[in-house]
Amino acid sequence: MTHDTLIKPTSIVVFGGTGDLAKRKLFPAFFNLYIDGRMPQQFQIIALGRQKYELEAFRDYVHDNIMAFSRNTNFLPEQWNDFKEHITFFNANINDDQSYQELRGLVEQNDASWGVRGNRLFYLSIAPNFIDKVSTGLKNFGLADNTTGDRIIFEKPFGYDKSSAIELNKLLARTFHEEQIYRIDHYLGKETVQNILAFRFGNSIFEPLWNNRHIDSVQITVAEQVGVENRGEYYDHSGALRDMIQNHLLQILCMVAMDAPNEFESEQIRDKKAELLKSVRRIKREDINHYTVRAQYAAGTINGQAKKGYKEEPGVNPNSTTETFVAMKFYIDNARWQGVPFYMRTGKSLRQKHSAVVINFKDITKTKFPANRGDIENNQLTINIQPEMDIRLSFMTKQPGLDMEMKPAEMVFDYFQCAPNSPEAYETLLLDVLDGDSTLFMRSDQVEEAWDIIETIQDEWEHGDLSPIYTYPAGSWGPEEADELLKRQGHRWLSSVPQTTKLETEKDGTAV
Amino acid sequence: MTHDTLIKPTSIVVFGGTGDLAKRKLFPAFFNLYIDGRMPQQFQIIALGRQKYELEAFRDYVHDNIMAFSRNTNFLPEQWNDFKEHITFFNANINDDQSYQELRGLVEQNDASWGVRGNRLFYLSIAPNFIDKVSTGLKNFGLADNTTGDRIIFEKPFGYDKSSAIELNKLLARTFHEEQIYRIDHYLGKETVQNILAFRFGNSIFEPLWNNRHIDSVQITVAEQVGVENRGEYYDHSGALRDMIQNHLLQILCMVAMDAPNEFESEQIRDKKAELLKSVRRIKREDINHYTVRAQYAAGTINGQAKKGYKEEPGVNPNSTTETFVAMKFYIDNARWQGVPFYMRTGKSLRQKHSAVVINFKDITKTKFPANRGDIENNQLTINIQPEMDIRLSFMTKQPGLDMEMKPAEMVFDYFQCAPNSPEAYETLLLDVLDGDSTLFMRSDQVEEAWDIIETIQDEWEHGDLSPIYTYPAGSWGPEEADELLKRQGHRWLSSVPQTTKLETEKDGTAV
Repeated sequence: MTHDTLIKPTSIVVFGGTGDLAKRKLFPAFFNLYIDGRMPQQFQIIALGRQKYELEAFRDYVHDNIMAFSRNTNFLPEQWNDFKEHITFFNANINDDQSYQELRGLVEQNDASWGVRGNRLFYLSIAPNFIDKVSTGLKNFGLADNTTGDRIIFEKPFGYDKSSAIELNKLLARTFHEEQIYRIDHYLGKETVQNILAFRFGNSIFEPLWNNRHIDSVQITVAEQVGVENRGEYYDHSGALRDMIQNHLLQILCMVAMDAPNEFESEQIRDKKAELLKSVRRIKREDINHYTVRAQYAAGTINGQAKKGYKEEPGVNPNSTTETFVAMKFYIDNARWQGVPFYMRTGKSLRQKHSAVVINFKDITKTKFPANRGDIENNQLTINIQPEMDIRLSFMTKQPGLDMEMKPAEMVFDYFQCAPNSPEAYETLLLDVLDGDSTLFMRSDQVEEAWDIIETIQDEWEHGDLSPIYTYPAGSWGPEEADELLKRQGHRWLSSVPQTTKLETEKDGTAV
Repeated sequence: MTHDTLIKPTSIVVFGGTGDLAKRKLFPAFFNLYIDGRMPQQFQIIALGRQKYELEAFRDYVHDNIMAFSRNTNFLPEQWNDFKEHITFFNANINDDQSYQELRGLVEQNDASWGVRGNRLFYLSIAPNFIDKVSTGLKNFGLADNTTGDRIIFEKPFGYDKSSAIELNKLLARTFHEEQIYRIDHYLGKETVQNILAFRFGNSIFEPLWNNRHIDSVQITVAEQVGVENRGEYYDHSGALRDMIQNHLLQILCMVAMDAPNEFESEQIRDKKAELLKSVRRIKREDINHYTVRAQYAAGTINGQAKKGYKEEPGVNPNSTTETFVAMKFYIDNARWQGVPFYMRTGKSLRQKHSAVVINFKDITKTKFPANRGDIENNQLTINIQPEMDIRLSFMTKQPGLDMEMKPAEMVFDYFQCAPNSPEAYETLLLDVLDGDSTLFMRSDQVEEAWDIIETIQDEWEHGDLSPIYTYPAGSWGPEEADELLKRQGHRWLSSVPQTTKLETEKDGTAV
């Protein structure tokens, strides 16, 4: 079996080693990296948990989870037998100093067997209220004191609002250097999201068009078909603005709108993203209803199945005003984007699962092709993130025939035509952490800027009474008000999947 | 049967009505226009010929030719029976005034039966030495004196060099107004060539890239697989420069490089084309060998069949120095194209039939993606004219997988995916003449400029001794010297079909 010999020996410590994330994502990802020869030559995964597991029983449990959740279950028995030797289970109590003392013994034992102080990677897959305890423990026992080789990985939420995010960052800063901290937004590990940067900066033909002289508007959609499922209680204290816009959608916005880094290098890219977030125009309280639409799903039908409304979901307050849908418009106040609306929408219980970016280019000069030349549509570049994973460029071409009449056509690049079994986001992201590449992870300033962008809206929606909360039937594309938000400027939601019925009929049912 | 009621009643007079062009192209085109309801409601085709034909015998002859040469032989008997009533045969002697007198009688008879002075369309499908005679005849008998409705159509050659072209234009100007004269370059009637303008000006995303800031170089290839066939005697007095570069390739150059007209309107487009030709840098006699390569095909193999060399072809002088292949580089001295090389090549007995335009965009800034990110190729837009008819945009994308490595990919728009049985060039062009739309026809100034561009080269190759004539084996892509012409600036011939063996092996046989 090959290994990555460039990555230093690494002790990987998973807090929450028996939790859902470890089960479904982390162990399958580590194993797939191992099969691909991308794990370090020497490594040990120490899974921490409160349960008691015999070592072999825990390894069997990991094996069962891989068979249930990995994209790849077609491996050789010896691959698993080799890999499982790298797994240890450690029954720990994260509130007890004794556990950190013992953990230190375990990682130092690794170092001793490798004959070198290995890197240490701490994955904190734990509830936010334990972060203080764990980071203090790691600090007190000197577990992460190599600031270039020891890394800590977090999942969102990175705070609940701007001030709690600043608090959390301060807390982390007491223990870790910023470059040790890897904040995961798994959306950024998706191939199609990473490809946005490759596409923009690996080609010479897009960057000259990528500005307000040539782009009319941009749309970012992250639509979920699922409702809150069994997460009603958690979700009812969060909502789409905090759960989706603050992180996934603003991160995609960064990929789409950031200025070009001079080099394709981690800190330069993160600088450009932070700059972009700083340039996003803050929405004033009195303008919130002009720029945003919030809504909750009511009962409806998805794929022919009756679906209950949000307020009937288990764990949700029957009088909840938590939004399950947000549509909003941003402006970016810099030279590149002045005047270009960026429309965003996200929601649950929508008609289809569909994440996409649509770049809507400006009209051609009207005199060029008068009306008798056919219906000239503006160019669009659609980047489908999921479940479709392709890039589509729509353009006008001559209608074959005797007259110079135009018709719309499309060029398509299917991202996975040659790579159907591609790595999952977590594989990419974990390898990057092992490798010390922080490009796809959020720096503290990005997180704080993203909270700052939504702060006023968040406050008004939680504590004010200015903003109505609309409803939409489960299985629709959201409330009509979300369409109105765009119609004011002559726009409408564009995507490669069918839109609301009203818009569909305007186009004879053609997907728009 | 429907008709175009907007086109005035028209008498169509075909000089050379029993000739090859009428047989293979004109009658099939008129009949297909008729089937498509695009012929005027009232029209009469008068075919002139020296042979004697009974009317029905001539109509049968036309029918047989349609069955043999039309793209569409699947028509209803009544369609033919209706159409043939519009055909008359007129046994004429174009050197005899009597014939013009009688012709006048025939067209006036049409006018009488329509109750209106119809338009008159004279198709001069005759040898160049008869043009003076026929145009004088038409003038003397007042046949084409309606300067807005009477039109005359020519095929190339429009002269043999600049001075003879000027002479010919003067001769025509004595009889006709410029706007009555339709000079056909059937290349301009091809769907894929017309689409170049639609593509450039019907979209907002290409025009901003269409200049020397973003385009590195342009290539225009018109490769023929056929040799001179039975036209050796004619061809040996012409050659590729005069037969192809002066017209087809320079016309395609106009489509690719002309500035945008303010409106998509005939005279504006022709003005922009003429301007472009004026801006093409003239090549000085002492620079001819630097900018051009001429060659003759030697014996070789095409598709496994032995093929004789040009000098062995029937009708060709065994000591001929007529070129069957030209490769050359042009510069255009205007703000848009300053510094961008336009490479052109055309030849006979080449490996494949292949006409294409390749727009080669500039490299990305080298620092963006260093070498470890994969082999970054520059973007290319390929417009395949024939036999492939598609538009291909090559670009870089992220190689799916764990690393940010780039790979080339392609988006393709297949022009005929939805219209496999599209009109032929002659249908488009004849309808345009009937309709009085001269967009796709060459104005006298364009013709003279095009001759002016090649004049010095033509003179040197015919009368000078500075330029070597190279050879290439039939079935190759031309002489090595044509590759050298590009290599000096780090370029090479690009197309969607395999290149010369040497270049192929550089890329592991991948078509480049």
